[in-house]
Amino acid sequence: METHKQLIIGLFGFGVVGEGLYKVLQQTPSLKASIKKVCIKNTAKKRNAPEALFTSDKNELLQDPEINVIVEVIDDSVAAFDIVSTALKNGKSVVSASKKMIADNLPALLALQKETDLPFLYEAAACASIPVIRNLEEYYDNDLFFSEALLLAQQLGFAESNPKLDVEGYDALNKWTILLNHAYGIVSAPTEILFTGIQNVQGSDAIVAKEKGFDIKLIGQAKKLKNGKVAAFVLPQFVPLSDPLSFVKNEYNGVVIESGFADKQFFYGKGAGSFPTASAVLSDIAALRYNYKYEYKKLYHHQPHELSNDYYLKVYVSFDDWKYIPREDFEWIEEWHAQAERKYLIGVLHCNKLINNNWWKQNNTSLVLTPDAIIDDLDIVHLKKRSLELAGVI
Amino acid sequence: METHKQLIIGLFGFGVVGEGLYKVLQQTPSLKASIKKVCIKNTAKKRNAPEALFTSDKNELLQDPEINVIVEVIDDSVAAFDIVSTALKNGKSVVSASKKMIADNLPALLALQKETDLPFLYEAAACASIPVIRNLEEYYDNDLFFSEALLLAQQLGFAESNPKLDVEGYDALNKWTILLNHAYGIVSAPTEILFTGIQNVQGSDAIVAKEKGFDIKLIGQAKKLKNGKVAAFVLPQFVPLSDPLSFVKNEYNGVVIESGFADKQFFYGKGAGSFPTASAVLSDIAALRYNYKYEYKKLYHHQPHELSNDYYLKVYVSFDDWKYIPREDFEWIEEWHAQAERKYLIGVLHCNKLINNNWWKQNNTSLVLTPDAIIDDLDIVHLKKRSLELAGVI
Repeated sequence: METHKQLIIGLFGFGVVGEGLYKVLQQTPSLKASIKKVCIKNTAKKRNAPEALFTSDKNELLQDPEINVIVEVIDDSVAAFDIVSTALKNGKSVVSASKKMIADNLPALLALQKETDLPFLYEAAACASIPVIRNLEEYYDNDLFFSEALLLAQQLGFAESNPKLDVEGYDALNKWTILLNHAYGIVSAPTEILFTGIQNVQGSDAIVAKEKGFDIKLIGQAKKLKNGKVAAFVLPQFVPLSDPLSFVKNEYNGVVIESGFADKQFFYGKGAGSFPTASAVLSDIAALRYNYKYEYKKLYHHQPHELSNDYYLKVYVSFDDWKYIPREDFEWIEEWHAQAERKYLIGVLHCNKLINNNWWKQNNTSLVLTPDAIIDDLDIVHLKKRSLELAGVI
Repeated sequence: METHKQLIIGLFGFGVVGEGLYKVLQQTPSLKASIKKVCIKNTAKKRNAPEALFTSDKNELLQDPEINVIVEVIDDSVAAFDIVSTALKNGKSVVSASKKMIADNLPALLALQKETDLPFLYEAAACASIPVIRNLEEYYDNDLFFSEALLLAQQLGFAESNPKLDVEGYDALNKWTILLNHAYGIVSAPTEILFTGIQNVQGSDAIVAKEKGFDIKLIGQAKKLKNGKVAAFVLPQFVPLSDPLSFVKNEYNGVVIESGFADKQFFYGKGAGSFPTASAVLSDIAALRYNYKYEYKKLYHHQPHELSNDYYLKVYVSFDDWKYIPREDFEWIEEWHAQAERKYLIGVLHCNKLINNNWWKQNNTSLVLTPDAIIDDLDIVHLKKRSLELAGVI
């Protein structure tokens, strides 16, 4: 029998997540994991743990040869990157919950992980309590069960410690950057992904959605195109009430994975919050006992996928005045509606028309994808003809 | 770096699942797992693999010292138990997909696993593509994140290889027996669990459900009671259309895990079928590379839970004639409806009134739980009084 590794942990951060972990590990000796030292910013603050446990000197953790695991649950993504990099270079396994840090530094972190071949786990940084990374790594890791499509739904408005991350959808974008790597081997910066939050969505859009039997959610979406590349973006979308993603509310996230052989999985759980985060960190710690590592199979064992801009999107756009809308950018418009206060249209345009322009985020204009919004480049000619026929133009 | 174990597999069964595994493992050398020998019943049948791979002699696999993993995907639960037991005794890791075999032999298999301390994985036997066992083992494995409640929903009618397993709900019962162990440390025989399928549910019940805004699903359910024990059963239940479990259709299963700190997770995926089963078996094989084992923490590291009969159920019962219904068994009846052809009532009774009697499965009588059907023993006095007040009796 392989005996489990004894884990001696250096913990960065002692907020709700850090303190929760400390308590759980104390109460669960079977995990064979103990926290030796905790690094915090403010040593003056009263803590519910022995004073000798704390330090404000990161090197007391990072340079301690007895500490073999660094767990990092702090809010500062620049400091977190420094901690994680140094820990890996010093031969320590790492568990992190910092989605922004990971999304911003993916290439550097992947290089470090490869160089050191150490476990670097961050399930909490994807969807907190939903084990989506582990699932992508272990279930969709070969040719027969590849990911055809991946969707992540969340509703905005749940307060993270930095509200800006949330309201404008940066939180979803960071998660999405991380998941694209595990699902498709795509290593991209958050800035390379077509993206907006729902800060521009209007009350009138919600009324239209309701009339049509839809909800509006912020959806991270990726889909394999016929050219073998992947369309990926994070945008508000109409979701039919019959779709499991329409259930996603408050701090819950929903993840849909569609794979070869028409298998579809849906995961729903808390994607943020202290306890769901602590639960995911704890699960990663438990996995370290048997030296579990992400294998990044889509990146290293297969031809990794590339992002593609060869696709069209069917979008709903609402606006105050036609003058803000470049109608010539649309391949066709299938529906339009005008009232004194607010107008909207539903039409099809090439994704580059959104990527290269900002009209759809300005002047009180709101853009929401329709359900099944992605139209493959190779299907567009047929669909365009059909659309013009239906409109009576040809 | 710990190098991954090379897995030399002996495979029992070469149906769609077995053949699929063979192909995937051939195409995925990175898994470092190869099938050395396949044991089949009918050696005369033409197979899409070299003839030398096959044998009908189980000992060629079980006694081969080079084979370190036995994967068993056969339909015969008696033969499967013999194979799995012998494999473990002979020092081989085991992956199994036989839910009936595992549910029927849980105590013996747990004893064997403990004695040999070998990996014995069977994710495919729970909900196929939904990684529910792994999740229960790794996420809900300590005092802070214990399972408050667990629900498994499925719709009957999807054809398994043995249709009887499915129509009468034995499939759900076997899954439930397995999951109760991983969620609560409860080791019970399927025969000890309050249970029926939906073979008695009538068209008229579906109409009543629809009027009330419900669907009817077969639900495996477990809930911690105030006495610290667990109420558990598999019964048809009304599910509100707003509940994620109402989405569960065809071969899909839905699993809800409610844990400490009000965390709720919902998993939805194919719970049966060749490819979902193969996907789960493959994931177990991948986990064997790093010697992953279930730890049965709720059974061995905590005080395991016990099943309780100290609870009441609020049930809908439809029937042809009052004479078949022991009205005196009900604490109270809150609703009744009579038409010429069919009658129904909604009332509350002690679970022992169902456990010890069969009237609710006979004479064309149909029983469906109401939503939130479980009433804790300790709440019943207050609720009974309130119910009688509302009825104008006191």
